[in-house]
Amino acid sequence: MIEPTTLALTGDRIEAVYEFHGDVTEAEKRANALRVEQTIEFPADLVPDDDIQRSVVGRIESIEVVDSGLVCAVVSYAVETTGYELPQLMNVLWGNSALLPGIRLIDFKLPDSLLDRFPGPRYGIMGLRDMFDAPTRPLLATALKPMGLSSERLAATAYDLALGGMDMIKDDHSLSNQPFAPFVERVQRCAEAVAKANAQTGLNSVYMPSINAPYDLLDERVEAAIDAGAGALLVLPGITSFDQMRYLASKVEVPIMGHPAFLGSYSASPTNGIAHGKLYGTMMRIAGADLSVYPNYGGRFSFTRGECRDVVANLTGPLGNLRPAFPSPGGGMTLDRVPEILEFYGNDVALLIGGDLHRGDNLAKTAANFRAAVGG
Amino acid sequence: MIEPTTLALTGDRIEAVYEFHGDVTEAEKRANALRVEQTIEFPADLVPDDDIQRSVVGRIESIEVVDSGLVCAVVSYAVETTGYELPQLMNVLWGNSALLPGIRLIDFKLPDSLLDRFPGPRYGIMGLRDMFDAPTRPLLATALKPMGLSSERLAATAYDLALGGMDMIKDDHSLSNQPFAPFVERVQRCAEAVAKANAQTGLNSVYMPSINAPYDLLDERVEAAIDAGAGALLVLPGITSFDQMRYLASKVEVPIMGHPAFLGSYSASPTNGIAHGKLYGTMMRIAGADLSVYPNYGGRFSFTRGECRDVVANLTGPLGNLRPAFPSPGGGMTLDRVPEILEFYGNDVALLIGGDLHRGDNLAKTAANFRAAVGG
Repeated sequence: MIEPTTLALTGDRIEAVYEFHGDVTEAEKRANALRVEQTIEFPADLVPDDDIQRSVVGRIESIEVVDSGLVCAVVSYAVETTGYELPQLMNVLWGNSALLPGIRLIDFKLPDSLLDRFPGPRYGIMGLRDMFDAPTRPLLATALKPMGLSSERLAATAYDLALGGMDMIKDDHSLSNQPFAPFVERVQRCAEAVAKANAQTGLNSVYMPSINAPYDLLDERVEAAIDAGAGALLVLPGITSFDQMRYLASKVEVPIMGHPAFLGSYSASPTNGIAHGKLYGTMMRIAGADLSVYPNYGGRFSFTRGECRDVVANLTGPLGNLRPAFPSPGGGMTLDRVPEILEFYGNDVALLIGGDLHRGDNLAKTAANFRAAVGG
Repeated sequence: MIEPTTLALTGDRIEAVYEFHGDVTEAEKRANALRVEQTIEFPADLVPDDDIQRSVVGRIESIEVVDSGLVCAVVSYAVETTGYELPQLMNVLWGNSALLPGIRLIDFKLPDSLLDRFPGPRYGIMGLRDMFDAPTRPLLATALKPMGLSSERLAATAYDLALGGMDMIKDDHSLSNQPFAPFVERVQRCAEAVAKANAQTGLNSVYMPSINAPYDLLDERVEAAIDAGAGALLVLPGITSFDQMRYLASKVEVPIMGHPAFLGSYSASPTNGIAHGKLYGTMMRIAGADLSVYPNYGGRFSFTRGECRDVVANLTGPLGNLRPAFPSPGGGMTLDRVPEILEFYGNDVALLIGGDLHRGDNLAKTAANFRAAVGG
């Protein structure tokens, strides 16, 4: 038994909601294990009835049997357990519990004292609407691909897409620093091509390179991109971390689009992982994404309409003082689906159509058709 | 249709093995979708019969029906698709496929031309054996906790554990920069306490702070830790990225222990994610972990004996010129299980016992009993 501890705590607490799948008679025991696992990770019987036991250890606020195989528990944590830093917030919410079977993090609420530490999206929906002179219409995004093309050919593609009036022309998330189109060369050519098209159209298309850089080359690549005239950045937090995205959003004065690469395994299982809305919505927004890409329902991936709605609600609903961010559904979207997608999302959406724009023999014209389809 | 491309490729290829769960008659179609998804992510019918179609797009090397609901496919990728960088290697292996239902990455082999870019563990098993003057015995690791204790009390705990002869005294992975024990203060006190104990015992116990730092504070915290005398670092790549760990291993001349926080969702589902051995074994080792922590079978978590064996095989088996790394099974281990655990692992293991050492009223003595139990 350790000696008792007295702590000065603010009383502010995070509330996390977990599902426990399996035998409901075991759920309370499992919730008790979780509240310890996520905090002190120490035999609870060795901690006296002190401030650690009462306040640092997670607290079960409620526990409810939902059905014969599912219990839902609200567990609260002292905000101090996070040290007011994003990496440790992630650790408190989901660090070791990810290793426990049959548990899913389905919601969390953060106190203002914590949310205030995260500026969130620098531009958000209103900022991007200003940037693209698009007060009400949906925004338009597309991707440069396929991997294997030279920088020159990607730049020619970017030029056509900008002529066609795309707001955001992003690198495919798989473009990094391959010999086919090395990063610095590519961003220079593509940014130049988009600027040339803008001079002709009078629009403000932005080129958005994919920043999936080695840790020690991040600043240098981002600087090269900004110097070349990149107008936004594509970031892959599942690979390079949510906190790196937060850092970029705090430092770089261009919009950031978060991409879901490598994150899918968190949302793939109904009995483990993190709910779609919290992962592709709240986490992306806290980490500063102005736009969050995710697979739309009915494309090549497996998200349902409900899961897409959940993402939108968390990107755009109230979250402290953080700006709302654009949902950017993609993943095998086609031009002929635009009316249906707009009916589902309304106008606060950044539509992302990649490969399908390349059907036909005039890319700029297909892109212009895409723009016309949203009334742009 | 895009214009044909000619590329100069080395011919070196990565081989990845994927399981496709579900209707076996759909598997070939799904494997064909995956090989495109992971590379060009572009309608395959728009790419002519050129070097992109033949070599950049992933190639199905073999495909085999394993049972009525499972097909296994070997897909190879040109090494150039990775740009020889770890973040993009992760993207090629598992980026978007993580979002596809019913697919699991169960193995991968990298050509030497890629492995040569990753130095891997700086110390590895032999280097750590030298460091702790432990030519044959298992190594001993333990954790400072519970969160909520002051730096002074954590340091007092570290002192006792070092007196008891622990090789590695790590911060609990949940200690970051909380007000209870702020990072810089904590690492100074704890490193000092361990040095004091070493002066008495003549041993070389190391204090291993947990580095779960915000992106922009990483270098400063690591420098503070090393300056204070920390003899190793605990890193959480599931939160701060595998590539950050690779960076640290390349830069900092102390051993690194990789911790599985936030990674559990990749290994939780038998029908999605990444096999235990590849994630907690190969990935950790490529990214430079000298030791990889994972939940032992029979503890609070859910790993099986087979999964633990898979981790060990990938930490210690042949992998280019990379040094083998120590498996460090933990997660609710107890002193009375030591003989059984050693029978399972043999001596090439770094046993990790945390809370259980705190039972009884003499921590240094319990730690000494742990050391005696491995013949140290």
